[in-house]
Amino acid sequence: MEEFSVYILGCGSAKPTLRHQPSCQVVNVHDKLYMIDCGESAQMGFAKTGLNIQRLGHIFITHNHGDHVFGLPGLLSTLALLGRTADLHIYAPRTLQEYLDTVLRIYCDGMDYQVLFHAVDPCLNQVVFQDRSVRVESIPLSHRLPCCGYRFVEATGLPHIRREMIDAFHIPISQINNIKMGASWTTPDGTFIPHEKLTTPARQSRSYAYCSDTVFKPDIVPYVSHSDLLYHEATYSGEMELRATQTLHTTAPQAARIALQAEVGKLCIGHFSARIRNEQALLDEAKAIFPNCVLANEGLVIKL
Amino acid sequence: MEEFSVYILGCGSAKPTLRHQPSCQVVNVHDKLYMIDCGESAQMGFAKTGLNIQRLGHIFITHNHGDHVFGLPGLLSTLALLGRTADLHIYAPRTLQEYLDTVLRIYCDGMDYQVLFHAVDPCLNQVVFQDRSVRVESIPLSHRLPCCGYRFVEATGLPHIRREMIDAFHIPISQINNIKMGASWTTPDGTFIPHEKLTTPARQSRSYAYCSDTVFKPDIVPYVSHSDLLYHEATYSGEMELRATQTLHTTAPQAARIALQAEVGKLCIGHFSARIRNEQALLDEAKAIFPNCVLANEGLVIKL
Repeated sequence: MEEFSVYILGCGSAKPTLRHQPSCQVVNVHDKLYMIDCGESAQMGFAKTGLNIQRLGHIFITHNHGDHVFGLPGLLSTLALLGRTADLHIYAPRTLQEYLDTVLRIYCDGMDYQVLFHAVDPCLNQVVFQDRSVRVESIPLSHRLPCCGYRFVEATGLPHIRREMIDAFHIPISQINNIKMGASWTTPDGTFIPHEKLTTPARQSRSYAYCSDTVFKPDIVPYVSHSDLLYHEATYSGEMELRATQTLHTTAPQAARIALQAEVGKLCIGHFSARIRNEQALLDEAKAIFPNCVLANEGLVIKL
Repeated sequence: MEEFSVYILGCGSAKPTLRHQPSCQVVNVHDKLYMIDCGESAQMGFAKTGLNIQRLGHIFITHNHGDHVFGLPGLLSTLALLGRTADLHIYAPRTLQEYLDTVLRIYCDGMDYQVLFHAVDPCLNQVVFQDRSVRVESIPLSHRLPCCGYRFVEATGLPHIRREMIDAFHIPISQINNIKMGASWTTPDGTFIPHEKLTTPARQSRSYAYCSDTVFKPDIVPYVSHSDLLYHEATYSGEMELRATQTLHTTAPQAARIALQAEVGKLCIGHFSARIRNEQALLDEAKAIFPNCVLANEGLVIKL
């Protein structure tokens, strides 16, 4: 099966600790790389993955808090130093643009590639990017400033031709593309062979949803429903729910309830507060509600 | 003896590697902390030292290249999150100010402490800061944009009173400050006791000079002369001298020649190019000219 993996580069919250880096992930879909959030040290985390940074074409930023964007200047500068020429696309709420423009003007003058900014409306659930491998949809979240999550939905591709049927019915090569696109076939003697007999279905589409930062927001359930993997912030433990609500963050049990309602395949919790010393306790709380749950950690790779 | 130490937080050059972080150091003079340069991840490096970040009052930036300043946004934000109220002073060539102002406006609105920017003229050798412990002087360097090094000169303090002489001559307590400031004493019977008999000399002043980034520039020798420790960039090896000259950097042998001419106590070389795989070779080259030389490395602490 083609690659669809999530690399956790950073899963701490705003106040840094010696345990975690600020938010950053890389999603590998069919060997093309997409970054989600870009906290300070993102480029150092990227280097540790061993992935080829030139395969990174698109960066999706959830919101304009420093712990989600302060890795951008270093990353953009390094790509220039590495001789990049391919365009780099950045998707984010409009609030990021002033900082990005300032960084590009002061530090990236004369570099050989272009950074193209795409403003995302964080209030809408819509397709913000699509290529042959993946479709990326925004997920409206509620935080202290405009913020959205992202869902990566693998393109299903076309059905696979059953070679033995092509041979059996002497179907000419010229017809194969038509059949892939949905056509059936009628033999010279008038026998109708339906499309479904000539092909096997396209692969099952896999999907990954990333929701951080946000207050507990059950109305996102339809937007993340049946994802194979959901990363949901769990900044605090259940007993800190009041603080979570006040700071517009989520607790581990709340994240698990989203996973349960959305019937996702697996839940990964992260964005841990610097106050959390015992992450295992958060995991236990979440697992009591949604058993297939793991703790995010720098260096963790989850294959879908 | 009171503390005077240099902590290396980062000693790589612009293109990051898995071996080194971008430029950043912390100087501890009598338990007050001063930062020199603030490359990306400076705050993570700081956390690893175990030093108390609230003792950091002044940051000295050499020049406005990303690998010397991209750690500022994260550091400033974290200080706000930690509840800092004391002023923070940043000294740098004027070229830093626009970026700093943008970061403060977008990300640091409403924080409880003030950042005070002090423009340094990088063409002059002058005192840019002075307190009771230390005097900081700028060192004009030559790089691709305005750039200066910094020299930290420990305040010598006042001479120490010899208690036994005070007692022997029955000198009143009210005169002690005068004697510390340089006065002598005449006894009631007219005997003159010179200042030097009443005191022991103040401690020897220690000094640390930081020169990065710069082309080989022997005319800085008077500004770093007889420093106890000189950190000098050595981006390249001797055989890469042409490249060093073209990019306005220094080689290891050139750094050693500065140390030799300036008769410093010890040389520490750093700011290694990502191309340098064998730093030991750089050290060997430098030691052939100036034997008391060490390689910078993240986590290294040099006590003066």
